[in-house]
Amino acid sequence: MTEQETVTAALLVIGEEILSGRTQDENIAYIAGSLDRIGIALSEVRIVPDGIAEISGAVNSLRQQFNYVLTTGGIGPTHDDVTTDAIASALARPVVEDDPRAIEAMRECFPGKELGPGLRRMARLPEGAELVPNPLSGAPGYMIDNVVVMAGVPLIMRTMMDNVVRRLDTGTRVSSRCIRVDAVEGEVAQTLADLQAAHPKVRIGSYPFFEESGYGTHVVFRSKDVDLIDNAARALRGALETSGTRYAEVSASAEG
Amino acid sequence: MTEQETVTAALLVIGEEILSGRTQDENIAYIAGSLDRIGIALSEVRIVPDGIAEISGAVNSLRQQFNYVLTTGGIGPTHDDVTTDAIASALARPVVEDDPRAIEAMRECFPGKELGPGLRRMARLPEGAELVPNPLSGAPGYMIDNVVVMAGVPLIMRTMMDNVVRRLDTGTRVSSRCIRVDAVEGEVAQTLADLQAAHPKVRIGSYPFFEESGYGTHVVFRSKDVDLIDNAARALRGALETSGTRYAEVSASAEG
Repeated sequence: MTEQETVTAALLVIGEEILSGRTQDENIAYIAGSLDRIGIALSEVRIVPDGIAEISGAVNSLRQQFNYVLTTGGIGPTHDDVTTDAIASALARPVVEDDPRAIEAMRECFPGKELGPGLRRMARLPEGAELVPNPLSGAPGYMIDNVVVMAGVPLIMRTMMDNVVRRLDTGTRVSSRCIRVDAVEGEVAQTLADLQAAHPKVRIGSYPFFEESGYGTHVVFRSKDVDLIDNAARALRGALETSGTRYAEVSASAEG
Repeated sequence: MTEQETVTAALLVIGEEILSGRTQDENIAYIAGSLDRIGIALSEVRIVPDGIAEISGAVNSLRQQFNYVLTTGGIGPTHDDVTTDAIASALARPVVEDDPRAIEAMRECFPGKELGPGLRRMARLPEGAELVPNPLSGAPGYMIDNVVVMAGVPLIMRTMMDNVVRRLDTGTRVSSRCIRVDAVEGEVAQTLADLQAAHPKVRIGSYPFFEESGYGTHVVFRSKDVDLIDNAARALRGALETSGTRYAEVSASAEG
């Protein structure tokens, strides 16, 4: 297997309600999982308030570091929805009012309904935006340069993300395997350190868990090369059997 | 009421398992709510992988912008726990091995148990760190300069955060009030824009919701001055009654 270039992304969550503790985020895990499945490495997440300076500053910092920047939130009809102005400012593009494609999409969703200033606010798009459809309420997300702009309402974000994953340049998928070890992290720390040193091309993560059924350590192997994962996992099983430590295979994800 | 200076904080979540979509974050909302209750404005959250460069870069960027930086994760016993090295690097401090306070705390939690290299890794602290106790498993968090370092395991993080809130410089609490409006955002957008313009010292947020019982808009008023919130909320109720739009008071938080 030849190593392909890694495709990276950052996620910018625009959400004052998350920063104030009012709302529990529901979007990060869905987007992280969607990107992981198409071989894009989500490399950073930022959550910022609904302010033009905060959003455009973060977009410009992130889009220079990563292949894609995805955003959620702030594209609704109200005064506190300022994402489009922030994206336009970050990309130095003008904002186009009443984008005809967006107006048409909203008319199809609300036949016969007059589009007042609130709804028309959702047809303001940075010049050059390609639409991401929103079958639930019409008002679109969009892609522009390497930035993907989606709604914050989880139900709508998911339909947009499911569309977006088909339009991004994908990389080689990172495969993973998880072994549940019936020992606390401290007891297997040296074993895992030796294992990581012997398998430098596999990323070996260690995550303690505490459940009603017991506690222990999830050891997660991640690599683009399934064979390398298999080798490292075999070595861990051998070491655990030698020391008489119980373990179980938890899951295996698709191949790279 | 005189306006006090705002105390700000950023949260840095160190969590490769969240970026890969394997784990749903459970810490952000708890920390956001805890800070909100003591009048500290959580102003940005970042999630980065378990890498020294990524962590120290984020810490140094955030601690210059905000009064406090809180971190979660990466202080366990295994090779992929590199937060302490990253914090020491960011603050240009040496790492002290076998901090006697940390060793003592772990011995109390595990009487008679030998502290091997794994557990002792959790007694490595940047020079000058003040401990944050961990009654569940001994291994402490710590505070150093304006950085607060906590565990990533939610149960342990919560006990640490409950201790930390008593040790931070607090600000004037931001009060909030939420009114549930039985109309989609687009229908009240102009009303809310006018309201925000007339009440510039109250932050008026609009959050659409879709529940089995119906859909509509949560309007959230936030300010350090409860009287200003009351005035803005009264003005909204008046406007809604004039237009015949149904609404209900949802909640009111403590006073500032």
